[in-house]
Amino acid sequence: MNKIWKKYPYIGNTLSEVTQLIIDTTNDSDDFITKAISGALTSGGKMLRPAFLLLSAEFGSYDKDKIIRLAAVIEMLHIATLVHDDIIDEAKLRRGVESVQSKYGKDSAVFIGDYLFAKCFTLISSNFDTKTMEKLAGAILSICKGELKQYSLRYKYDNGIFSYLKIISGKTAALFAMSFHIGALESNLSERHVKILTRIGYLIGMAFQIIDDCLDYSDNKIIKKSTMNDLKQGYLTLPVIYALNNDKSQELRKLLETTDFNEEDMNTIHSMVKTNDGLDEARKLAKKYTSKAFSYISKLPDTENRRILEDIIKQMLYRNY
Amino acid sequence: MNKIWKKYPYIGNTLSEVTQLIIDTTNDSDDFITKAISGALTSGGKMLRPAFLLLSAEFGSYDKDKIIRLAAVIEMLHIATLVHDDIIDEAKLRRGVESVQSKYGKDSAVFIGDYLFAKCFTLISSNFDTKTMEKLAGAILSICKGELKQYSLRYKYDNGIFSYLKIISGKTAALFAMSFHIGALESNLSERHVKILTRIGYLIGMAFQIIDDCLDYSDNKIIKKSTMNDLKQGYLTLPVIYALNNDKSQELRKLLETTDFNEEDMNTIHSMVKTNDGLDEARKLAKKYTSKAFSYISKLPDTENRRILEDIIKQMLYRNY
Repeated sequence: MNKIWKKYPYIGNTLSEVTQLIIDTTNDSDDFITKAISGALTSGGKMLRPAFLLLSAEFGSYDKDKIIRLAAVIEMLHIATLVHDDIIDEAKLRRGVESVQSKYGKDSAVFIGDYLFAKCFTLISSNFDTKTMEKLAGAILSICKGELKQYSLRYKYDNGIFSYLKIISGKTAALFAMSFHIGALESNLSERHVKILTRIGYLIGMAFQIIDDCLDYSDNKIIKKSTMNDLKQGYLTLPVIYALNNDKSQELRKLLETTDFNEEDMNTIHSMVKTNDGLDEARKLAKKYTSKAFSYISKLPDTENRRILEDIIKQMLYRNY
Repeated sequence: MNKIWKKYPYIGNTLSEVTQLIIDTTNDSDDFITKAISGALTSGGKMLRPAFLLLSAEFGSYDKDKIIRLAAVIEMLHIATLVHDDIIDEAKLRRGVESVQSKYGKDSAVFIGDYLFAKCFTLISSNFDTKTMEKLAGAILSICKGELKQYSLRYKYDNGIFSYLKIISGKTAALFAMSFHIGALESNLSERHVKILTRIGYLIGMAFQIIDDCLDYSDNKIIKKSTMNDLKQGYLTLPVIYALNNDKSQELRKLLETTDFNEEDMNTIHSMVKTNDGLDEARKLAKKYTSKAFSYISKLPDTENRRILEDIIKQMLYRNY
């Protein structure tokens, strides 16, 4: 169990049950499959999405078995997209552990991801209404659409902020929104509260991704390999997009279009993103999403559960970035 | 419409409706997605799986709209697995048309496949019982398991026939079986007829894959690039496995373990597969599955529909191989 749940044993213990259900569900008669999947699972992640599903449900009353099942589905779906993501990024590591694609090959990673998607649907094919099923398929579609949009806009240095927001709304915020949404639906909250919680999920998802993209440029000394890879592959994140917009001299754009991303150029890009206010403006937008999220949280019933939710979101979003 | 359906306009026209539904379902607000997916669709394939679903349903009475929807799902699922398959094989072409992974990159191909899987579930999330949903997820699982088993057994030159049969049972026969099964269920056939039709699907799926694997070795003059790639990547098909079993001198095995698959060695491998009876024995097994399939067909009601089914299966399996 990740240490952030120590303060909240009920959440932590329920997440352990979720983990156990995922392990049981993906325990295959074929050893190779079980091993490859457990490689994707054993990573001590925070399990934020299932936790939010649970916290959202806690505002009403729910059937715990069903909630655990749905939480497992959300986490499996998330892991499946990570496994597929790593194929594209050729990522060697995932949360410090060797990635499925690196350890078992791209071939396996494609089908391990598919296997996990299919398992999500077997887990909810009985006992749930078609609405939940539709929502789940909808979440996968949003993620795919976000990723495909991102891909189709590679190397387009005149992309606006709007395209970026659309991308992260699909690839990140949609699943957070869905986690809150399903939790709220399953505990029969009022339509208004369902809407508020879904909105919170969306807003913190947006903030989370922007913060993640800021972190690539916030450290002066270290340029991450992933940052270089993103740029090399033509993927622009918010700090770069803001900097490109602000850079009237177009020097950053020219450099991005011509560089082979050697160390010297990377350092120049890094500092140009900052001097052109790319990092600052991105930070500002992340803060806007964050404070908007908290203003929605304040509309929820003032309970112990709300304080836990606030605390977790603070840990997630109040970082140095 | 593929020319094999000209003799059977009802099937052909229904398949056109299925195609139209797939096009409508995958028409996305994002042009890039619509284009990339239509690249995977426009290939004039025979659409055997949806056709078998329909032919199976024709033994009873069914709701045509539902059958068209299910047929679209089966075909989309099949296309999704092909798109993912091509990533692994790095296939340039698919049915003579440039593959999604070649035209739009591996990145896109991963998420186009996922998108299609998700669309399958949105298409059936309303209106269908949980059993159909489970069957569908089960079919995806079987395909993944087959592919993963195949991967985990690469370069293992002492694999038995049994492992090979397990692989193709998952990666090919399961979806054929499912097509017959779902068609039969939806037209409320007796349990016995559902079983017979499912069995026919399984048997022709097995025969189909073995025949496909035989074709790699049946032409004397041409060694296909895909055959070489399979061997290079350590994937053994039935003719090779039989030949390895029969080759007491172990020369074929030694060659496979040491060669860099140059033209000369490929020619030697090719002829060793034949001289060691690998091709002949594989053909024999394909024929066994085929005749078993026809013996099950003879148990079905003697209708015009049965004759169509026989005719299609003959066209599919009575080939020079």
